[in-house]
Amino acid sequence: MSFAQAMIQSHPQPALGNDTLIACIRACFDCAQACTACADACLGEADPKSLARCIRLNLDCADLCDATGRIVSRQTAFEPHMVTAALRACAISCRLCGDECERHAQHGMEHCRVCAEACRACEQACNALSGQLAA
Amino acid sequence: MSFAQAMIQSHPQPALGNDTLIACIRACFDCAQACTACADACLGEADPKSLARCIRLNLDCADLCDATGRIVSRQTAFEPHMVTAALRACAISCRLCGDECERHAQHGMEHCRVCAEACRACEQACNALSGQLAA
Amino acid sequence: MSFAQAMIQSHPQPALGNDTLIACIRACFDCAQACTACADACLGEADPKSLARCIRLNLDCADLCDATGRIVSRQTAFEPHMVTAALRACAISCRLCGDECERHAQHGMEHCRVCAEACRACEQACNALSGQLAA
Amino acid sequence: MSFAQAMIQSHPQPALGNDTLIACIRACFDCAQACTACADACLGEADPKSLARCIRLNLDCADLCDATGRIVSRQTAFEPHMVTAALRACAISCRLCGDECERHAQHGMEHCRVCAEACRACEQACNALSGQLAA
Repeated sequence: MSFAQAMIQSHPQPALGNDTLIACIRACFDCAQACTACADACLGEADPKSLARCIRLNLDCADLCDATGRIVSRQTAFEPHMVTAALRACAISCRLCGDECERHAQHGMEHCRVCAEACRACEQACNALSGQLAA
Repeated sequence: MSFAQAMIQSHPQPALGNDTLIACIRACFDCAQACTACADACLGEADPKSLARCIRLNLDCADLCDATGRIVSRQTAFEPHMVTAALRACAISCRLCGDECERHAQHGMEHCRVCAEACRACEQACNALSGQLAA
Repeated sequence: MSFAQAMIQSHPQPALGNDTLIACIRACFDCAQACTACADACLGEADPKSLARCIRLNLDCADLCDATGRIVSRQTAFEPHMVTAALRACAISCRLCGDECERHAQHGMEHCRVCAEACRACEQACNALSGQLAA
Repeated sequence: MSFAQAMIQSHPQPALGNDTLIACIRACFDCAQACTACADACLGEADPKSLARCIRLNLDCADLCDATGRIVSRQTAFEPHMVTAALRACAISCRLCGDECERHAQHGMEHCRVCAEACRACEQACNALSGQLAA
């Protein structure tokens, strides 16, 4: 059992404690890490200038994934409008960053391929959770 | 001249370098700090249980203001869809947190009154900047 | 293979790409999440006032783990003094927060027990990596 | 009166509410913003490759200033060992980043000159506050 799952299961007032939530928490933290590492890997390439848009979107996406991962980790006084606002911004950010990374992945940038995968997984996890909140 | 203003003016490729942007950067960082401090002040009150929703929204709002303050501080490879997604989430978060703080301000919580003011200012600054990006 | 591992292995200029580093990245992000969730779970308990110190240290520890997790995810222009400074602060923070959580775990708070475990793992992972940098 | 000052003055249990603390809160948030903007400005320059070390230290410093700014904004259950650990890491980070920025400032990079100034101010403010805690 992961720490995230164990924390959800031991909460005194679980608002949402299900697999969709746990998957979203995990995907947000994984994507924050992958985007941080991808910005750094792009900066270490021979020509970071050609990767400036990728670096910038990586940094933005890391920041929104980080904020969203924290917000979905909270269950006390759960406020669907707040959570949904964060999830929507995070999904848009993952789509934009994932599209940019995919472009460089097609030219052989392996770190961009891995990061695009983390972005796609996070976009889907955020959409799945916000879909559930809207239902 | 503030550091934020000096940083914007010395950027090699300013995308947006105007007063609306500088005001938004400042408002996001001010609100992130005020929300962090308000969560802590609520926790130091005699009955934090009655302030649980305020603490929770303060923490969420601090996280989104922090992410948005970083994103609007970047001008290279400016991507309006990314910036707008962050600004909208931040404005919603500031409205929800500001409403909650205002309720406690009416019962004499001075730190909630100050924080509500920071939230209102940040909500307006985010809306002003996203309005400009949509124009 | 985790995203963190795949990102490290695809970096163009790996400074440290080994298991100690990957374990530290993972432990920092896990602990940031656990501390965020533990602060929230404490706030959802019947008497959060009695958990004020735990909530406060959880929030501090989440912030330092988050910063440290990002810093150890970067390998370009690796600066041992910067990384060591972050690792030391993070290890101290995990020790203080882990001690506090352990106290409440002994009185049956399961989320504090899980969080203490995440703090201990992160403290050890940070010490292992800073030990390696000093060698 | 700034928001930071008003938040400190309205805290129910001020641990440290003095000018040294308020200056440190302000300096940490200012430096987090300046370092975020300097990384971005470096990335927008004609040859970001030559600024890779500056960008990397800027990103690290922004993360530590952000965490430290949040930690010094909290006064409830004040724990000097936690605060001191953060202040020390932040001061080291500001010194390393300030030194690097100053090097580029001497070659005409105005954003690095402004950022170095923010780093120096933050290093001093962190040292002043940790000196007071040790006294």
